[in-house]
Amino acid sequence: MTGTTEGFDAVDIIAAKRDGLRLGGEQIDWVVDAYTRGVVAEEQMAALAMAIYLNGMTAEEIARWTDAMIRSGERLDFSGLSRPTSDKHSTGGVGDKITLPLAPLVAACGVAVPQLSGRGLGHTGGTLDKLESIPGWRASLTNEEMLRQLEDVGAVICAAGSGLAPADKKLYALRDVTATVSCIPLIASSIMSKKIAEGTGSLVLDVKVGSGAFMKELDDARELARTMVRLGTDAGVRTVALLTNMSTPLGLTAGNALEVRESVEVLEGGGPQDVVELTVALAREMVAAAGKDDIDPSDALADGRAMDVWRRMIRAQGGDPDAPLPTAKETHEVPAPADGVLVRLDALAVGVAAWRLGAGRGRREDPVQAGAGVEIHYKPGAVVRGGEPLLTLHTDTPERFERAIEALKGAYVIAPEGSRPDLPPIVIDRIS
Amino acid sequence: MTGTTEGFDAVDIIAAKRDGLRLGGEQIDWVVDAYTRGVVAEEQMAALAMAIYLNGMTAEEIARWTDAMIRSGERLDFSGLSRPTSDKHSTGGVGDKITLPLAPLVAACGVAVPQLSGRGLGHTGGTLDKLESIPGWRASLTNEEMLRQLEDVGAVICAAGSGLAPADKKLYALRDVTATVSCIPLIASSIMSKKIAEGTGSLVLDVKVGSGAFMKELDDARELARTMVRLGTDAGVRTVALLTNMSTPLGLTAGNALEVRESVEVLEGGGPQDVVELTVALAREMVAAAGKDDIDPSDALADGRAMDVWRRMIRAQGGDPDAPLPTAKETHEVPAPADGVLVRLDALAVGVAAWRLGAGRGRREDPVQAGAGVEIHYKPGAVVRGGEPLLTLHTDTPERFERAIEALKGAYVIAPEGSRPDLPPIVIDRIS
Repeated sequence: MTGTTEGFDAVDIIAAKRDGLRLGGEQIDWVVDAYTRGVVAEEQMAALAMAIYLNGMTAEEIARWTDAMIRSGERLDFSGLSRPTSDKHSTGGVGDKITLPLAPLVAACGVAVPQLSGRGLGHTGGTLDKLESIPGWRASLTNEEMLRQLEDVGAVICAAGSGLAPADKKLYALRDVTATVSCIPLIASSIMSKKIAEGTGSLVLDVKVGSGAFMKELDDARELARTMVRLGTDAGVRTVALLTNMSTPLGLTAGNALEVRESVEVLEGGGPQDVVELTVALAREMVAAAGKDDIDPSDALADGRAMDVWRRMIRAQGGDPDAPLPTAKETHEVPAPADGVLVRLDALAVGVAAWRLGAGRGRREDPVQAGAGVEIHYKPGAVVRGGEPLLTLHTDTPERFERAIEALKGAYVIAPEGSRPDLPPIVIDRIS
Repeated sequence: MTGTTEGFDAVDIIAAKRDGLRLGGEQIDWVVDAYTRGVVAEEQMAALAMAIYLNGMTAEEIARWTDAMIRSGERLDFSGLSRPTSDKHSTGGVGDKITLPLAPLVAACGVAVPQLSGRGLGHTGGTLDKLESIPGWRASLTNEEMLRQLEDVGAVICAAGSGLAPADKKLYALRDVTATVSCIPLIASSIMSKKIAEGTGSLVLDVKVGSGAFMKELDDARELARTMVRLGTDAGVRTVALLTNMSTPLGLTAGNALEVRESVEVLEGGGPQDVVELTVALAREMVAAAGKDDIDPSDALADGRAMDVWRRMIRAQGGDPDAPLPTAKETHEVPAPADGVLVRLDALAVGVAAWRLGAGRGRREDPVQAGAGVEIHYKPGAVVRGGEPLLTLHTDTPERFERAIEALKGAYVIAPEGSRPDLPPIVIDRIS
């Protein structure tokens, strides 16, 4: 019978969580392992996930669940490196290219950054999709290549191998089709099982909050951050979280090559102020978490050392840092509708527009356009003049403009001149 | 994508119920139909069933869900018969052989009884398993054979065809492995979709309550009964429910041939008092629900007309009502442990013992033993003498005795002579 072996029974475990009971450690170990092996059926895990969604899990249950997912696969080990390691995870936002300047910046401070990343799905872009717009750059490395690059260059951004937390991969796909994604115990264990299995010594979490983020409410974001910090700390990984603003896009671009261009501007000492501020704030946390509290990452950004690491990091993965980046075949300008102060530019709407222009994908197997996306000419707080371009839309396939423009309906608000919008800071809170 | 066609999305529907919202009628129609067709995946229905389990459904949602399950298959039509029809459904109990004497008794009162039944699973026996212990009797009839027998004999007990409520068949199998069985909206819609699809004009529900029943608590049984009566009434079927006692087995036998023997005793004018009482009470309700309030079924039992219908009903399905019934190869007596008054004989324990002796099955594909089961020598309230047989266990496979005896541990309680146990009536309540 499905789900009944070795003294445990899937139906009993589902019934216990359904009835609001705590699951025992051995029950959790068994059900996660048996699900990974196909002994617990998809429909049984779906019922259990819904029961967890509605009845929750205690901190102890979440920790055991996370641990069981880690033990479902391999665990990397960076302890042989000559430098301490630090990793970052963002819960995902619009225009969030921070990993690109951040990884080389932290490496330039003497901390190794093993950044295993993913591709985008839906309105938030994926770090690998962005880097793949650089001619020649490849995302897949063997564990040996990754270790060598970490030792030689100090930073690597690559695809996570399929051997890490296979239970999480299977469960994530299931949650996606059973309306059990937006559940803090399951989100926290999913993220942390992957990050802990990756073997980093310290971890900084960028938990986004706002319209463009997964967590729309500050309280939910804070609870998620606390849950993840506790999981990391209990697993022996120094973990800190920043709650950061995602009500408006980060920087002035949302797209793949567009965001690489902006990241390079930051590494050259320029770039939008919010991107620089968040990159440096996260770099400070990572460097400190790795035990190098005395180093100020601003210096490595100012004197070009971060840029040097970037160039070596791109080259080590086959990319040409000097090659021109792809541009979209067509552009379309969205003008400001009136004179005044831009008081709102909605992150979700810009993210959906960039996605519809071809920068993102609707299904895992879809390709993305390297040049597609949205260029932002003004950020909230700026004075604009009616008729001047507010946004420029980029795509290779101009039939996409219409639906992108539709997504932007109501996305920007212009108030009379002299208005002072209430703009939240980039970093809203810190949890350690 | 799985579950996304025709303007509806399975994930949206699951999310709505997860968030405690009411599902719209069209959402319910779509999800039940799409699940039957395999467009909504098993894991999606599992998540939805758990959300329904935990967040409930309104009376309106349950009615629509039931209707959607009825419309997933064929619907029988008995309106061409010369007599009114009435059907009975029992939620299942230990020693519940009532259908056997009841169907011919009601038919003898001029009401046609189309009794579509199932096989047993777990500790409650199945009506078809019992009748199959009669040499030659067959459970499967075509719709035409069933109609002809109803017209000629007035009663038919046979297997439900696979064309009735296929959505329910699929969903029931799923609920069984996902801990979503014991949920009133899903139980009520499951039972009533089958009964309404069977096309009866009136319906009497025997909702059991007590240790041997699915519903252990009176309040739950009452809520289930009310929900089902409302569903039947709204669908135009005259529906009445009796809440009946299942804390101790019905009659003096639990098993297949053992229960047929007892049923024949009742039809001969004898039999245990509780079986006679419940048979007549249910017959009265069925005859009245079919519009024949003036007829007293006791007469048809006393004068042998019910027995005549029984013999014709068994013969019409290939059985020989005069053939000796199979008996088990081995018996084992369980003695009363002391002198005194038997104050308790637990239904669940006797049911499990009969099951373990071979009267029931653990998996759908298992065979049952015709002769296996438990014979009861004393019912609660009786004075017993230590060492006298209390129960006789019957099986073809004597290695089963040990686990049956184990199931009976603590199942019977003997109090000092003169004790007066508080015995509930057979019929506890009536809901119409």
